Amino acid sequence: MAASKSPDRDKQSHCNFDVDYVIAYDIPAKESAEAEAAFTQLIEALSAVGFATEVRPGRTASSLLVFVKLASPSLLKSQIYRARVQDWLFGVRPSAPAPSDSSNDTAATTTTSKTDAVNRYFAEEEPVTEAERLRLAYELITRPRNEGGAGVTPKRGQWRFVASVFPLHDRAFNRAWISAWSRKYYLDESDIGNIRDRFGERVAFYFAFLQSYFLFLVFPAAFGFAAWLLLGPFSWVYAVVNCLWAVVFFEHWKMKEVDLAVQWGVRGVGRIQLPRSQFQFDREGIDPVTGEVVKVYSPYKRLQMQLLQGPFALACVVVLGGLIFSCFSIEVFINEVYNGPFKQYLTFLPTILLTILNPTLTTLLTRLAEKLTELENYRTHDAHQASFVQKIFVINFITSYLGIFLTAFVYVPFGKVLVPYLDVFHLTVQRFTAEGQSLPTKAWEINPNRLTKQVIYFTVTAQVVNLATEFIVPFAKRKVFRTVERVQTGLSEKSAGGATAATTATNPQRRPDEPEEAEFLERAREEAELDEYDVTIDYREMVVQFGYLSLFSVVWPLTACSFLVNNWVEARSDAMKIASNSKRPIPWRADSIGPWLDALGFLSWLGSLISAALVFLFKNGTASPSGSPWDIRAWALLLAVLFAEHLYMLVQLIVRGVVQKLDSPGLQKERSERYAIRKRLLEKMVEWDVSAAETHGPGVTGGEKITRTALEEEARKLSVVGEGRPEQLFWQRQRGADETIQVGRALIAETAANKTEGKH
Amino acid sequence: MAASKSPDRDKQSHCNFDVDYVIAYDIPAKESAEAEAAFTQLIEALSAVGFATEVRPGRTASSLLVFVKLASPSLLKSQIYRARVQDWLFGVRPSAPAPSDSSNDTAATTTTSKTDAVNRYFAEEEPVTEAERLRLAYELITRPRNEGGAGVTPKRGQWRFVASVFPLHDRAFNRAWISAWSRKYYLDESDIGNIRDRFGERVAFYFAFLQSYFLFLVFPAAFGFAAWLLLGPFSWVYAVVNCLWAVVFFEHWKMKEVDLAVQWGVRGVGRIQLPRSQFQFDREGIDPVTGEVVKVYSPYKRLQMQLLQGPFALACVVVLGGLIFSCFSIEVFINEVYNGPFKQYLTFLPTILLTILNPTLTTLLTRLAEKLTELENYRTHDAHQASFVQKIFVINFITSYLGIFLTAFVYVPFGKVLVPYLDVFHLTVQRFTAEGQSLPTKAWEINPNRLTKQVIYFTVTAQVVNLATEFIVPFAKRKVFRTVERVQTGLSEKSAGGATAATTATNPQRRPDEPEEAEFLERAREEAELDEYDVTIDYREMVVQFGYLSLFSVVWPLTACSFLVNNWVEARSDAMKIASNSKRPIPWRADSIGPWLDALGFLSWLGSLISAALVFLFKNGTASPSGSPWDIRAWALLLAVLFAEHLYMLVQLIVRGVVQKLDSPGLQKERSERYAIRKRLLEKMVEWDVSAAETHGPGVTGGEKITRTALEEEARKLSVVGEGRPEQLFWQRQRGADETIQVGRALIAETAANKTEGKH
Repeated sequence: MAASKSPDRDKQSHCNFDVDYVIAYDIPAKESAEAEAAFTQLIEALSAVGFATEVRPGRTASSLLVFVKLASPSLLKSQIYRARVQDWLFGVRPSAPAPSDSSNDTAATTTTSKTDAVNRYFAEEEPVTEAERLRLAYELITRPRNEGGAGVTPKRGQWRFVASVFPLHDRAFNRAWISAWSRKYYLDESDIGNIRDRFGERVAFYFAFLQSYFLFLVFPAAFGFAAWLLLGPFSWVYAVVNCLWAVVFFEHWKMKEVDLAVQWGVRGVGRIQLPRSQFQFDREGIDPVTGEVVKVYSPYKRLQMQLLQGPFALACVVVLGGLIFSCFSIEVFINEVYNGPFKQYLTFLPTILLTILNPTLTTLLTRLAEKLTELENYRTHDAHQASFVQKIFVINFITSYLGIFLTAFVYVPFGKVLVPYLDVFHLTVQRFTAEGQSLPTKAWEINPNRLTKQVIYFTVTAQVVNLATEFIVPFAKRKVFRTVERVQTGLSEKSAGGATAATTATNPQRRPDEPEEAEFLERAREEAELDEYDVTIDYREMVVQFGYLSLFSVVWPLTACSFLVNNWVEARSDAMKIASNSKRPIPWRADSIGPWLDALGFLSWLGSLISAALVFLFKNGTASPSGSPWDIRAWALLLAVLFAEHLYMLVQLIVRGVVQKLDSPGLQKERSERYAIRKRLLEKMVEWDVSAAETHGPGVTGGEKITRTALEEEARKLSVVGEGRPEQLFWQRQRGADETIQVGRALIAETAANKTEGKH
Repeated sequence: MAASKSPDRDKQSHCNFDVDYVIAYDIPAKESAEAEAAFTQLIEALSAVGFATEVRPGRTASSLLVFVKLASPSLLKSQIYRARVQDWLFGVRPSAPAPSDSSNDTAATTTTSKTDAVNRYFAEEEPVTEAERLRLAYELITRPRNEGGAGVTPKRGQWRFVASVFPLHDRAFNRAWISAWSRKYYLDESDIGNIRDRFGERVAFYFAFLQSYFLFLVFPAAFGFAAWLLLGPFSWVYAVVNCLWAVVFFEHWKMKEVDLAVQWGVRGVGRIQLPRSQFQFDREGIDPVTGEVVKVYSPYKRLQMQLLQGPFALACVVVLGGLIFSCFSIEVFINEVYNGPFKQYLTFLPTILLTILNPTLTTLLTRLAEKLTELENYRTHDAHQASFVQKIFVINFITSYLGIFLTAFVYVPFGKVLVPYLDVFHLTVQRFTAEGQSLPTKAWEINPNRLTKQVIYFTVTAQVVNLATEFIVPFAKRKVFRTVERVQTGLSEKSAGGATAATTATNPQRRPDEPEEAEFLERAREEAELDEYDVTIDYREMVVQFGYLSLFSVVWPLTACSFLVNNWVEARSDAMKIASNSKRPIPWRADSIGPWLDALGFLSWLGSLISAALVFLFKNGTASPSGSPWDIRAWALLLAVLFAEHLYMLVQLIVRGVVQKLDSPGLQKERSERYAIRKRLLEKMVEWDVSAAETHGPGVTGGEKITRTALEEEARKLSVVGEGRPEQLFWQRQRGADETIQVGRALIAETAANKTEGKH
């Protein structure tokens, strides 16, 4: 039997049993009665909106897995049709999703023939992707009941036992995906398209951005390498080219983003706002325009909360800035001033402090940012996300760049002035050593390589460490966790004098799975324990990286080379992360990279200022020859910065103008779609013109041969008799075009005659 | 007879005999044969597209007036319907202009019933404004023949004898309009709405902008007055408030513009591009998307021409800048250095030079700008206009602001250094006076009031002069011209022994008009001689004025008070200009103030820099106490400017964010329209859901009471026998929601039982 089953098993390992979503359901020991009641409600709610359900035990004894699928194909179709009509109404699609023109004539035709037309439509005209099906299924599960959904909100309120709702990975696809990507240098549109079909546009946009950025990096990598060989660091030529590149990249991406959105048919989906179920409302008001009941939250209350962003940013600066500044000072003191005992150990002190405190503080601040954003109580998911991204950008800006800023703009120019104040440490240290004994210190000199070293650390070492952490840590964590669990279970089994097989290791009391399902269920249980994939983290990493390039690469022109290599690996490791280290993401749509675009623009703009300042300060080795800050010509520095910034803005204006004039496949597609609709409708309008032409009325053609005098005489007679209004008389003088022509020619002839007479 | 006619006449003087357009037709003496042939073609072309025509003699013997009207109401309706459908297709209207839902079912119903529905539609749902009718009539006259128009292009090619095509003024409306406006302080929305209905959105946008600007001026006028009393000139408080105001005004107008466009139903008409008939094409290509034949002009050729904008701007700077600089130098020399003979006359020399040369050079450069824009050969009217506006903005920027810039940033800070070089004049003058005799000069001091005087001149005197010129000159010109003409005709009549009446004064050989028409024709002849109204000139004036306020009002805080008064008059005088000094404008549509918006934004931004610099330089009386430029702390100046600019950008960002969140009547209208469509369509979709629910298929409801074991046993049997695919088996284990609930509850109970057992 085992032998006959193995090919079946191979097939099964790729098969998800048509499951759309898995709902992981927790049963806390203390609340099992409530959990049972809620479970009944869950299944009822799901089946009420049309889901078929199956329940199976989870990995641990206190969890269940509910498998759901859309029960009938026609339900799916009606959902898709509804969603597409909504898209059209919000301007996302150029035309209504009508199978053919005949479906407009709904009144007469029967429902059956309509269904036929719809079937044809889905089969031929616009096939349904997996991402679309999964998205709609998820929306059906989570949409509030009064809007026709099951109203399931994981982890909250009535549904607090629902741990997560997730789709299952398509293992066959994932395997093919990873193996294909690891064997090609260059990801093309079809690769991104595949991602879009499986994981939705939100994830696809990340990979599209990553790929676009990767390709664009080739230029600064090549130019940077040449600059490194020929120009050396702090070259203004490199700075100008780098800024120019940043502008072109930014503007290109803005266009590319629109282009992709059009190609993917998601342009403007930002307008279809997903409401946040966590939104708290003050009162229910009535929309003056639509007359619908809307949930109202006072904007002033929100503004009050938003104003907390100021103190929050300040707190970030103080906390993280304080940490970085302290470590920086200790490091400078130990490395460059201190010369006493334990120096070889003390050197690591700041690094250790940073490594321990920085992630801790960052995590704390990120939680604070989450709380704050929660308190701001946005109605829509997008607004919430944008506000949150803004806050974590502040945190990341400080942790990533403040160290280098300190070196470049405080340590080097003001070092001679400030370092003596590091005597604070001196005194502190002295207190711990033998009293009266003078601490051995070196004569201090500004270390000109410090800046370069720091930039290299952040752009090479930190990137590699980051990559490794991101990929290895969750994997290792899971392995360790699994091992610990197994050991514990083994112990408890031993204590219970266990005998059951290894397959039921984690849930000893559980009945064994059906053999046909065993592997599938095992997979589902594994996936239920994976983390959720958060694309924000990946975007953050790339934006921070772009910041290093834009702000500091003038210090070390090889920066882009390092990033080029890093990002090739990054794309693959992110794919791996999605495929094996995360739950399959819910395929949300998106029409852009969202709030990160602003962050990119900001960094690109700041790059022009910082690069100019760096070039100005460091061009000749160090900031000021004598090491005193007062030797720097402040007006020249400011002029350089001012000039660089305005040059940047001017270039941006020009590049924007040029980019706007370029054509792109997406825009062409949009144009052709619009054109097709226009053409169809204008053709329909021809009959109008025909019917209109029939009733053109008098005065257009015809008219007998007449002389002007005769005609005017006739009209005069009419007026004397008193017939007709003046308007009628006016327009009856010349009946038809021919008469007008005759009269006109007569007038012209008269003129000519007069002229000739005049000459005589 | 005269007595009985007078009431008739009164009525007639308001009556335009239903004329839509008047075509002024010239007959040059040398080409009267060609003119005659072209006249025939003209009448034929017009009547072919459905115009009724009447011809009458013009004012002079060598001109004709052709009166045209749309021959039938149904032609008008079909034109309007076509235009509205086009609007819908381009996204200008939210819904198709369908009279009711019944018109969608076109296939079955007859043409007659459709016409009825359309009649109802025009009468009730969307009445046709005069502006809409006139615009469509004009388009029908000028549209190329292959697109269904008459293809008449005034003054060019085949139609070079067509001097102009213009609608007639509605005297009654004009009289009411002017008298209403001169009696009210504040123009409300209905006033602007009337303008829109008569003269189209392009003109209405100008008045809406003017009114909005006027209202916004109240604040800086009040604040400026207070600042003038309390703070004095060069107050940084005033500068900050003024910049803030400029930002708020600019952002508000951007929103208002969109709002008005939506309210007027013209949002997005910019997308419906009017092709320029002057466009020259290289070749005819085929559009890859639509497959239509399109006219192609090489963008590289155009770019070459566009690059000439650089030299053009340079030429403007050199020519106008040179003139202004020379006059400036002469003025300084004469007023402040020279002390010799004829000083009282020589003082006027620079003013005379400027008054003569400045308009001449400006006119020349404007012609050059026209030529250049013509050479750039744009395909659409909007692109052409935008490029032209850009160029005249450069010219106006220099003529308006360069003088003040010279005083503020050259004369005052560098005066002590530069004035000695004015000895060039000294020497020149000396050559003309007795040799060896030393020219009497004063000891020179920087005149600190110079800047203030200059600003007051530009913001008060120049505005008044401008207003007077604009209004009086064309009136006077026309009067003088008429008198001269009359005198000439009188002479020629005398020489011919003239006897005919005064009414035929200008065209003695002309037969007298029909008495019913005489007055009407006289009016038409008068209007044919008026200038065309160009809204660009009025915009330019306002934008330049805004520039003075934004850039220099910190010098003299009363600036806004002067502008407030000026603009009250301006609105009325512009109305007068349209009503009596210009041909009635063709009622074009527009969805914004177009390229002037960019100019406003630029001036507002530049204002932040210039104000900061002015405050910094002049705060303490003069720029530098000793008069030497080297005493100015350049870094502090640059820092002030840099700070001001970034503060400006930050404020702009915030204001933009706030303004975007505001609701406005236009946006509400748009929302409610969209909502209405959405609601209608979603209601239609309900039947879909019903039909879908019927076919939900198995697995949703039902199921008998069963035990989990029995069920699983059953399934196992199925699998042993080999029936069904694994997917089927999986989903058949729990038949329906009830079974899932039962199984789930059993599992939960088991868990609870295990837990309890474990505890024992």
